[in-house]
Amino acid sequence: MEKLKKTERIAVLVKILSDSPNHIFTLGYFCDMFNAAKSTVSEDITAAKKLVEQMSLGIIETIPGAQGGVRYKPLTSEKKCLEFLHDLCIKLKDSSRIIPGSFIYMSDIMYNPVCCSRLGEIFASRFSDMGADYVVTIETKGIIPALMTARALNLPLVIARRDNRVTEGATISINYLSGSSRKIQTMSLSKRSIMEHSKVIVIDDFMKAGGTIKGLHDLMAEFKAEVVGTGVVVSTLEPRLKLIKDYYSLFILKDVDTIKKSIDIEIGI
Amino acid sequence: MEKLKKTERIAVLVKILSDSPNHIFTLGYFCDMFNAAKSTVSEDITAAKKLVEQMSLGIIETIPGAQGGVRYKPLTSEKKCLEFLHDLCIKLKDSSRIIPGSFIYMSDIMYNPVCCSRLGEIFASRFSDMGADYVVTIETKGIIPALMTARALNLPLVIARRDNRVTEGATISINYLSGSSRKIQTMSLSKRSIMEHSKVIVIDDFMKAGGTIKGLHDLMAEFKAEVVGTGVVVSTLEPRLKLIKDYYSLFILKDVDTIKKSIDIEIGI
Repeated sequence: MEKLKKTERIAVLVKILSDSPNHIFTLGYFCDMFNAAKSTVSEDITAAKKLVEQMSLGIIETIPGAQGGVRYKPLTSEKKCLEFLHDLCIKLKDSSRIIPGSFIYMSDIMYNPVCCSRLGEIFASRFSDMGADYVVTIETKGIIPALMTARALNLPLVIARRDNRVTEGATISINYLSGSSRKIQTMSLSKRSIMEHSKVIVIDDFMKAGGTIKGLHDLMAEFKAEVVGTGVVVSTLEPRLKLIKDYYSLFILKDVDTIKKSIDIEIGI
Repeated sequence: MEKLKKTERIAVLVKILSDSPNHIFTLGYFCDMFNAAKSTVSEDITAAKKLVEQMSLGIIETIPGAQGGVRYKPLTSEKKCLEFLHDLCIKLKDSSRIIPGSFIYMSDIMYNPVCCSRLGEIFASRFSDMGADYVVTIETKGIIPALMTARALNLPLVIARRDNRVTEGATISINYLSGSSRKIQTMSLSKRSIMEHSKVIVIDDFMKAGGTIKGLHDLMAEFKAEVVGTGVVVSTLEPRLKLIKDYYSLFILKDVDTIKKSIDIEIGI
């Protein structure tokens, strides 16, 4: 392969780093790729770092020492984050989203890959310094924002199931009381999916009273894992007393008026 | 903001394009961002295009005309694809993955964000020219590779449910016969999730006889949608006669020997 120019090296470096957020690449990796000296690659990294920060495209971080290297963090600036949530909020207010039972249809937004990638980056920006080992969620809809958060943080995703599937081996199950429907439900997780004494971030799509998320916290306690952050895309204003404290909710759904056909939702952060 | 140098513009261009695979950006978008003339941005795109292809990092494509612009396709070369699947195959052969019932534990691999991103890019490379409108899957495990395929193709993801949840509005449901367990099961999909006469790609994590995927094909027929591609991560060798034809399977699971504790699996493509 012909040797790359400095300008080309920087572009490749930025691309490879940002394709694998939070993955630590050694300097040697790029020295081999570019057939260049460490000092050259170091200079390239400095230039890439400056550029990415100048354009508010995240942060490139160098980690010193034997385990060191360089990594990219997709930090969303507060301004960009609010702009994005503001646009999304307008879409969510569309009265055609109202579904019988005062629910709102969100799948088209939540399952849009550009949109859920951004939601994941927003959660990742919030929880990036928590030293988490896993991102945990429960099937089904929570998987989407949770996977995108896991991708942005480069952490394994763990999915609790609402039943006991045979293909996961031995599981730990708990019963929990769904906060809004007051029904006893079960959630299960394969024993081998989380190491004891881990730190986890809990992500879900929707929270009413918080019963399911409380269940996930309880399930984590069974794994001797510590919940270091909890994020939900939408939480409802009522009931005001939630079963968990300290959660980060991107939107607060205040009211769905099925008669007037209006949705009252606002940014929660 | 100070004006960017050519070298910097190319790096930013490559980053922004590859952050949103298959999203078409207008030239004007980058002209505004860089405060530069169209001719300048065109030259930058040509340079970025050459670089990305030279490094086998995908393809940058310019689309002429009024609806035109530039987009990035994360095409995985056959060589890179096979290297990646080869490494994964070795991991999947680890006998500690055997679970009672001749299943193999794959969640740690499937839910690893780097790994599932790559799987999604491989499916996307295969199906990129099919003109699909949606990527369709069924809960739960299929969601992960399906979302990553949707991300790489910039298509909305659609998730069929195994029950009728109230929060999705009117649904279309079908009964299907699970090919291996011979049980009648139900799958449902919100009526508003797919427009009639769409083209869809079906992605799932695992296929034995193909009953579930056949069910998804039947469900698509109810939406008057055409299935233009079907991809599974792992399919079993037995039964050899599957309920569907024309599928793309990354791995073929030939045998799980619970006595000898060995897993016989190979690359399927």
